[in-house]
Amino acid sequence: MAPSAPDILLAAVRVVCCQIAPRVGELAYNRRLCAQAIRNAAQDGAQLVVLPELAQSGYVFANKAEALSLAEALDGTTLREWQELAHELNLVLVAGFCELLDGNELSNSAVLIDPTGVRSVYRKAHLWDQEKRFFTPGHASPPVIQTHLGRIGMVICYDLEFPEWVRLVALQGAQLLCVPTNWPDGGHPTGERPSEVVRVQANAAFNRLFIAASGRCGTERDVPWIGGSVIVDCDGYPVAGPLGPDAPGAVWVSLPLNDADNKWVNANNHVLNDRRTDLYPASDTAFPRRSP
Amino acid sequence: MAPSAPDILLAAVRVVCCQIAPRVGELAYNRRLCAQAIRNAAQDGAQLVVLPELAQSGYVFANKAEALSLAEALDGTTLREWQELAHELNLVLVAGFCELLDGNELSNSAVLIDPTGVRSVYRKAHLWDQEKRFFTPGHASPPVIQTHLGRIGMVICYDLEFPEWVRLVALQGAQLLCVPTNWPDGGHPTGERPSEVVRVQANAAFNRLFIAASGRCGTERDVPWIGGSVIVDCDGYPVAGPLGPDAPGAVWVSLPLNDADNKWVNANNHVLNDRRTDLYPASDTAFPRRSP
Repeated sequence: MAPSAPDILLAAVRVVCCQIAPRVGELAYNRRLCAQAIRNAAQDGAQLVVLPELAQSGYVFANKAEALSLAEALDGTTLREWQELAHELNLVLVAGFCELLDGNELSNSAVLIDPTGVRSVYRKAHLWDQEKRFFTPGHASPPVIQTHLGRIGMVICYDLEFPEWVRLVALQGAQLLCVPTNWPDGGHPTGERPSEVVRVQANAAFNRLFIAASGRCGTERDVPWIGGSVIVDCDGYPVAGPLGPDAPGAVWVSLPLNDADNKWVNANNHVLNDRRTDLYPASDTAFPRRSP
Repeated sequence: MAPSAPDILLAAVRVVCCQIAPRVGELAYNRRLCAQAIRNAAQDGAQLVVLPELAQSGYVFANKAEALSLAEALDGTTLREWQELAHELNLVLVAGFCELLDGNELSNSAVLIDPTGVRSVYRKAHLWDQEKRFFTPGHASPPVIQTHLGRIGMVICYDLEFPEWVRLVALQGAQLLCVPTNWPDGGHPTGERPSEVVRVQANAAFNRLFIAASGRCGTERDVPWIGGSVIVDCDGYPVAGPLGPDAPGAVWVSLPLNDADNKWVNANNHVLNDRRTDLYPASDTAFPRRSP
């Protein structure tokens, strides 16, 4: 039997993770860098593009004042340009930026933009190291957005080290989790994948969803990054990447997002229903309200 | 400054995971196989030995009647022999067996035995595939046992696919999680580690504890196994193994178990304290009582 039209449309979504090297403080440079990466991805057929964490501002802020000077609200220059590009190129964009909140507070945020505009902003809930000096942690659950391509979730970098958080994404029905990230290079044994990538793999397998993580490369104010951009399937195996630390680039693949709706691993095991919520609370027991 | 005596004693614990090929239904053969593996490990200096899941009985039962015929209670022949060996060889043993419960119920269990005898029995809470036909799932939290070597936790095989469960082990202070396992070979891409091993790695890194998983090899009633015996450090990297599917053997390493008490990954991040328990419930919120 031939699949119905919507099945054909959703059969595969071309996802591209762009690994770039933003420069802290150089907003115009970063805008050009991001725009070029998005246009390149679109030329390769991208329907969904993921950019790294804080792609708009760079990462290694000297102090809060510098971070404040680089922050943008949703009507900022970069965010407006990203919306124009998503509209022009008819794609979904997930990207990290330094968000200006009320009262001079800052958030390490990710935005999901589709051709109609900004659909969702996620504010990183688990802050890494010096980020605690600059950012207010998010207080809302990770969003899952119904787009024309499928149901897309967002978390950022260190969030991935909390499997409870990724479980929340899965329980909301995400098919693909997009992860803007900046992974500092903490060293790893020769021949081993960085454990950051291993955690991406395991989170995908635990929940049977796709994960697309876009990392940054280069060195910024003496901090080296691992790159690590990778797209992982529902079994937890990389289907594109991971990239190394040395050069910008991209990883891309066409993903059958509907596969993530099947949580059965055999006739008797369902990775979500098999949770023993009589012995430990479900991650969404105390489901937080989304901030307005 | 010289370390104090207890530090020296606890500086490193020699852990050995024995990868063997039990035969379903051949209790005497399996007893000899386990005894030989334990004695070999002890000759190599083992202080703690891990054997696979259902090492006493084999795994692929034809039906419940067969499983019942192979089950043992804690005073069974194999369990008594294991206690004698642990006493004679002055070691801690963690091993899987088919446990006979009251009323002809069965449990897929693991036992921790130290030189003084049985210290704890764990009953697998997350049952895999056909196990649901044979076994009653466990209803108690995973135990963490204070031994003379350190604080040891136990879970079994498919339990590892539920990071909430491993979190419970970590929250109880385990330094080393011992995992008797039987991983059926579901296939994996060439050049990739089986995702079962990847999940061991991620669970260790999420919680900064050591994990020692002992798998089985060989083919049993047409089910091939991946082996996969591995010992992973608190950063999530293998320090011994993983073994392949083809042959029995062992992996061993001396582990500085005290390292698992340090949950800080830098001056500002602690993998347990950084959980956002205001946004999702802690795994131990509804901490179950241990069954008697």
